[in-house]
Amino acid sequence: MATPITPIPLLKDELDIVIPTIRNLDFLEMWRPFFQPYHLIIVQDGDPSKKIHVPEGFDYELYNRNDINRILGPKASCISFKDSACRCFGFMVSKKKYIFTIDDDCFVAKDPSGEDINALQQHITNLLTPSTPFFFNTLYDPYREGADFVRGYPFSLREGVPTAVSHGLWLNIPDYDAPTQLVKPRERNTRFVDAVLTIPKGTLFPMCGMNLAFDRELIGPAMYFGLMGDGQPIGRYDDMWAGWCMKVICDHLGLGVKTGLPYIWHSKASNPFVNLKKEYKGIYWQEELIPFFQAATLPKECTTVQSCYKELSKQVKAKLGKVDEYFNKLADEMLTWIEAWDELNPSAKLVNGK
Amino acid sequence: MATPITPIPLLKDELDIVIPTIRNLDFLEMWRPFFQPYHLIIVQDGDPSKKIHVPEGFDYELYNRNDINRILGPKASCISFKDSACRCFGFMVSKKKYIFTIDDDCFVAKDPSGEDINALQQHITNLLTPSTPFFFNTLYDPYREGADFVRGYPFSLREGVPTAVSHGLWLNIPDYDAPTQLVKPRERNTRFVDAVLTIPKGTLFPMCGMNLAFDRELIGPAMYFGLMGDGQPIGRYDDMWAGWCMKVICDHLGLGVKTGLPYIWHSKASNPFVNLKKEYKGIYWQEELIPFFQAATLPKECTTVQSCYKELSKQVKAKLGKVDEYFNKLADEMLTWIEAWDELNPSAKLVNGK
Repeated sequence: MATPITPIPLLKDELDIVIPTIRNLDFLEMWRPFFQPYHLIIVQDGDPSKKIHVPEGFDYELYNRNDINRILGPKASCISFKDSACRCFGFMVSKKKYIFTIDDDCFVAKDPSGEDINALQQHITNLLTPSTPFFFNTLYDPYREGADFVRGYPFSLREGVPTAVSHGLWLNIPDYDAPTQLVKPRERNTRFVDAVLTIPKGTLFPMCGMNLAFDRELIGPAMYFGLMGDGQPIGRYDDMWAGWCMKVICDHLGLGVKTGLPYIWHSKASNPFVNLKKEYKGIYWQEELIPFFQAATLPKECTTVQSCYKELSKQVKAKLGKVDEYFNKLADEMLTWIEAWDELNPSAKLVNGK
Repeated sequence: MATPITPIPLLKDELDIVIPTIRNLDFLEMWRPFFQPYHLIIVQDGDPSKKIHVPEGFDYELYNRNDINRILGPKASCISFKDSACRCFGFMVSKKKYIFTIDDDCFVAKDPSGEDINALQQHITNLLTPSTPFFFNTLYDPYREGADFVRGYPFSLREGVPTAVSHGLWLNIPDYDAPTQLVKPRERNTRFVDAVLTIPKGTLFPMCGMNLAFDRELIGPAMYFGLMGDGQPIGRYDDMWAGWCMKVICDHLGLGVKTGLPYIWHSKASNPFVNLKKEYKGIYWQEELIPFFQAATLPKECTTVQSCYKELSKQVKAKLGKVDEYFNKLADEMLTWIEAWDELNPSAKLVNGK
């Protein structure tokens, strides 16, 4: 018989788990020992008349497209349809300080010793310990048990900065783009890298939404997953878009972003041919997006996530509008998103000011 | 009986192993299966009349202080005495394309499966595969077996750039500064992190000289370990200094720096009280050095390592001279180092031009 797992549910009343889905949530059975104490926000994508089955005993609220339209009214235009980008609606309606979001084809992974990995607990540890974006520590996260800052690490930087985002990884099916999937159909990620590290200031990375946690109070309004899916020219760039916007804003505001542990078990590769169709415009647009985000700077006056995000929307329109008309629409919906966020989170707006 | 180890000696005729020492090199016995095919350059520090014992069967050349003075004449002033910073003399006299340098208290580490780690082979792999300094790959080194670039990684950046430096890590005794040694006397590094990654462009890190390899043709002249030890106000910042100068120059020239694997087994902590005495000025000077190196930019006209290094020497004098008179002296010796390098490496000078 397996040893019973009795994790301590950290931040039980301060964290929501957001799950976008189009199917039954049987995957929750495997997560039951870890997720059951927490509240779930399920964002049902696609046909709202379909009934999503949630396993017994979970505490949840569920929103389908009708709910989104009802709650946001005309501002619902900023929430994608038929794409997992719709998950960001869950971020907006949450009233908690922390969010963990996971895809419904992600299962509990095992560490090299064969133990089940409590991904949520590791994300919480990542978020509750500082980040070190200004200087790289060669022994990785200096706040971990058994590690520290190495010789030559400036003492003035050892306090670190608040961590806004914790980006987890995937064993089994790696998060590859369609071309790589096509070229390496049998590649599996079997390497367990026992590290958490801060993405340095000024460095962009590909943020994947499959296994992701963040501090909603610190960075929530930047976690907009853009316009993807139904009626849009691209897909599968929702989390990337959020990641690039978020990183530019974290760098500006002095917040940290970590990547590495925890791993989840990603069970099933999506269809590479379908993916290619969704991605192909992104693949070449991206060559202009990355230099844009690498060069983006925000004025000192932008001291809240909202004001940073609005400024970024302006720059998107000014500089990416000429890449494709799509970016003008996206820039507009970025503003709609912020308006909707502030409407649903009036106290946060008050606290963050301006 | 253990399985006989028969590694393939990669780059056998293109790599020198540089070892600074003040004692007998019995540690080489443990490295014999890996190092014996290579040529060693031993830089004897301290009393030149002392006889260093090198185990039988190794191919080596040995330089003591008298040799350094004889070879460099008045330019020998740039080579530190009574400090492992003297190792950079070995970089200068080498005629090979690659250097691996290791301390004589570093032994062969074991990987989690109990296998001896061939550190040199991993360094060579690191150096012979490209780096990715412009964008972070969340599955770490994309060129490793079983890994690749993840979704969202710009395709235009997947060719990578040449790798100039491979920085390896240490199990057992971590490379801590004196204050951390004093506070955590019993801390040991037991975490094997199975990763190699590129330090992003614009990010500085604490480069340790204990377990380090580099491409001498690409970056050799930047690997000056400064003025430390006898007659100097600081010690234990030799490798740090080299690392900061090197990183600024690599960023400017579009070269890559990797850190992570391989691990060596670091056997013995140095005396924290002695270290504190060596380090204490560095600890507060460093607070000015890091902002200096973070802000340092090199003009486009600097297209060789030598010209970059000379420019950096100028900036050291202009901006750090006021921190302490020591930096004026260091800036001068940086120039002496380049002159001596070019004298001993005339063809390299010709090839690199200017």
